[in-house]
Amino acid sequence: MTRPSDRRPLHLNAFLMSVGHHEAAWRLPESDPYAATDVEHYRRLAAIAERGKLDSLFLADSPVQFGNPGRRPAGRLEPIVLLTALAAATRHIGLIATASTSYYEPYNLARLFASLDHVSGGRAGWNIVTTAGADAARNFGLDDTPPHRERYERAGEFVEVATKLWDSWADDAIVADKERGVHAEADRVRAPRHRGTYFRVDGPLNVPRSPQAYPLLVQAGSSEDGKDFAARYAEAVFTAQQTLEEAKAFYTDLKRRVTAAGRDADAVKILPGIVPVIGDTEAHALELEAELDRLILPEYAKRQLAERLRIDPDELDLDAELPDDIPTEDEIEGAKSRYTLIVDLARREHLTVRQLIGRLGGGRGHRTFAGTATQVADTLQQWFTAGAADGFNVMPAVLPSGLEAFVDKVVPILQERGLFRTEYTGRTLREHYGLPRPADRLAEHVREPGELASAQV
Amino acid sequence: MTRPSDRRPLHLNAFLMSVGHHEAAWRLPESDPYAATDVEHYRRLAAIAERGKLDSLFLADSPVQFGNPGRRPAGRLEPIVLLTALAAATRHIGLIATASTSYYEPYNLARLFASLDHVSGGRAGWNIVTTAGADAARNFGLDDTPPHRERYERAGEFVEVATKLWDSWADDAIVADKERGVHAEADRVRAPRHRGTYFRVDGPLNVPRSPQAYPLLVQAGSSEDGKDFAARYAEAVFTAQQTLEEAKAFYTDLKRRVTAAGRDADAVKILPGIVPVIGDTEAHALELEAELDRLILPEYAKRQLAERLRIDPDELDLDAELPDDIPTEDEIEGAKSRYTLIVDLARREHLTVRQLIGRLGGGRGHRTFAGTATQVADTLQQWFTAGAADGFNVMPAVLPSGLEAFVDKVVPILQERGLFRTEYTGRTLREHYGLPRPADRLAEHVREPGELASAQV
Repeated sequence: MTRPSDRRPLHLNAFLMSVGHHEAAWRLPESDPYAATDVEHYRRLAAIAERGKLDSLFLADSPVQFGNPGRRPAGRLEPIVLLTALAAATRHIGLIATASTSYYEPYNLARLFASLDHVSGGRAGWNIVTTAGADAARNFGLDDTPPHRERYERAGEFVEVATKLWDSWADDAIVADKERGVHAEADRVRAPRHRGTYFRVDGPLNVPRSPQAYPLLVQAGSSEDGKDFAARYAEAVFTAQQTLEEAKAFYTDLKRRVTAAGRDADAVKILPGIVPVIGDTEAHALELEAELDRLILPEYAKRQLAERLRIDPDELDLDAELPDDIPTEDEIEGAKSRYTLIVDLARREHLTVRQLIGRLGGGRGHRTFAGTATQVADTLQQWFTAGAADGFNVMPAVLPSGLEAFVDKVVPILQERGLFRTEYTGRTLREHYGLPRPADRLAEHVREPGELASAQV
Repeated sequence: MTRPSDRRPLHLNAFLMSVGHHEAAWRLPESDPYAATDVEHYRRLAAIAERGKLDSLFLADSPVQFGNPGRRPAGRLEPIVLLTALAAATRHIGLIATASTSYYEPYNLARLFASLDHVSGGRAGWNIVTTAGADAARNFGLDDTPPHRERYERAGEFVEVATKLWDSWADDAIVADKERGVHAEADRVRAPRHRGTYFRVDGPLNVPRSPQAYPLLVQAGSSEDGKDFAARYAEAVFTAQQTLEEAKAFYTDLKRRVTAAGRDADAVKILPGIVPVIGDTEAHALELEAELDRLILPEYAKRQLAERLRIDPDELDLDAELPDDIPTEDEIEGAKSRYTLIVDLARREHLTVRQLIGRLGGGRGHRTFAGTATQVADTLQQWFTAGAADGFNVMPAVLPSGLEAFVDKVVPILQERGLFRTEYTGRTLREHYGLPRPADRLAEHVREPGELASAQV
């Protein structure tokens, strides 16, 4: 396993989540239960990830309070703000924030990401989500979430509007001719005047074109709609895959869709999630995992599982398998592919509800892998070389210790095998992922010359 | 003048704007024409202001590209992102971002400010604006701006929703009992379930209560609606006042409205803007001012003035006074009080259009004062002790040099006179302004116990 059979560069993203991805991580003696809102905690994590030369940091998000805050750390910081704070504490690593196309206005969000890209010197990424769930809808004046298909249609138009706004300043718009008193060439800043189904947005953006032009566009839904969306727009895809076979099938299917959408297959990087639990020996790793699982509150976790499966908690018996009569994916609104993954996992391995809870407690459906650093490196290499992944979304069960173990023990093995960079060679997030900067498309987006408003500040 | 006659603390806010508030500042040899999107430029400004122990930094904003970008630096960074970046580069100074109640969703904006307050350790402020103008409306699917009164009604309800969300976590909600597996007391996080005219927002916020509980609430409109809004909600008010008499009248009127609204007059700090142009001698200061005014492009500035006055540019003659038949304030939608201020200034001093353009070029209606550091300190002290101001919104004509001159030359005089702090004594922005932290109002806002959604992350 020490000679890489594949010289494609491998990519690693650190998915940060307060004290770790395991839902009981906060109950460990080492964990700071106030970490979720402590910027210093996140600065430490960012420094560790950057020491490991990782491509990027990633923060999930939804504009709603998920879960009963009583049982685990539920509050969080808004990701664009938190990653802006981390931009100042880092120099190289990419900064990927999740934001919802269902509950933001394109003009506001396009400005926030363009600004993050400026202040970070070209390190911004946007994980585009459509946000399922009535709870989120009820924070924005709606009674329920719009249908799945409609959310994705809106998301597509949202991305179109945002890219038009990011394109509304030409790269060379600012000429700064003090003598003539011409700061920018007026015809190099244009109003896209978007007119669509969901949005009417005149523009131009009030932020000059940023180092990357756009944030890196990331997508994480694996439903049919989600995969089609990714094929059209995404440059990186985060996905949950439990087995090598499933991961290869997903990878092949998505790359095929990318090609069918007229894009180069390499233009989209696919990163399955992995929850590594790293020990000095395999037994030690398994003991760490078991310790975490013992801290899960089974009755609380059962209620969460029932909620996810859209059934009554009383229908679940901790020491029996899932009942037969649960909904099908078609009946589910949001997180559709994750739903199927969980049901398939339980059926395939004949897990009791208690065992399933343990498996989900670590990564909410992402693959958990407990082992030595070498074993972790081996499985990453296997998936990478087998055509199941272009890299990985690393989701430590416990933070910061799990990220430290990954960076200090697994990364050096991957580097030694020639799979992973030993220094940053690029400056921007797209350069880390080997992706091109979007071209200046000012002329393409503009239907008529922009008539700009006069000053009124 | 060296013995302060008034021991109230004086407050100083630095209003940052790329290379300065004078519209021609970018044409000076010293100015970096790319500064508007350069976070390093703003870090330098923040460091200077913090060296001067100023209360806060402030950034104006509107979600629209104002003005022809050809003639002056028009692009900018989004203020919440920029101030988050500056939070990491500073330790004490407050960070006040402008954001619009007409074009944001309360849940999104409440999260952004709560997060900024967390990452800055309690230094966030929100300048609440309603955003006039059809150009902004057309970036958000509207044809024109909603009427003035309606914008202010929405703004009031927006602030109510935001404060309910900030109150939705009790101060002591997080108990972090690892043994019992109780992270937060569930009944200390509640959904406000707001139902109003403009908004329906369930909540709770997904950000635990921040160091200041709310950002400092700031307001800058001086119309009748604006003053009533300030009296109800604001803790600091930025205002444009040209003369001591007008400033005293405004101050008295607003404090009266604050008292009438059932609040303590001291609960609102009033800070008129001042554009100081500081020279080693008065002649030197006047020469600096004249040099800036010579760099104004008169035909471009005339078009801007015509736009502000809602008249045809051809009706303005650079070397004559304003025509008689211009609109009244009632006919103006947005920036109403500023409109009247400009017309009054021109009529009172019998200014030609060219002279008026010069006066507006420096501060867009804010008071410009050219003189030595002692003269600047004298006028600040005079306004402060005369009951025209609780402090000042300092708007240097040129940045960074004008802020440097103010901090290094004027501030020491104010300190020597016992008017201004020599060290920060507080930790949060509200502490700098001598204002109390909002009390825990969880019970007050909640009509029924919040039923929180189950986990689904």
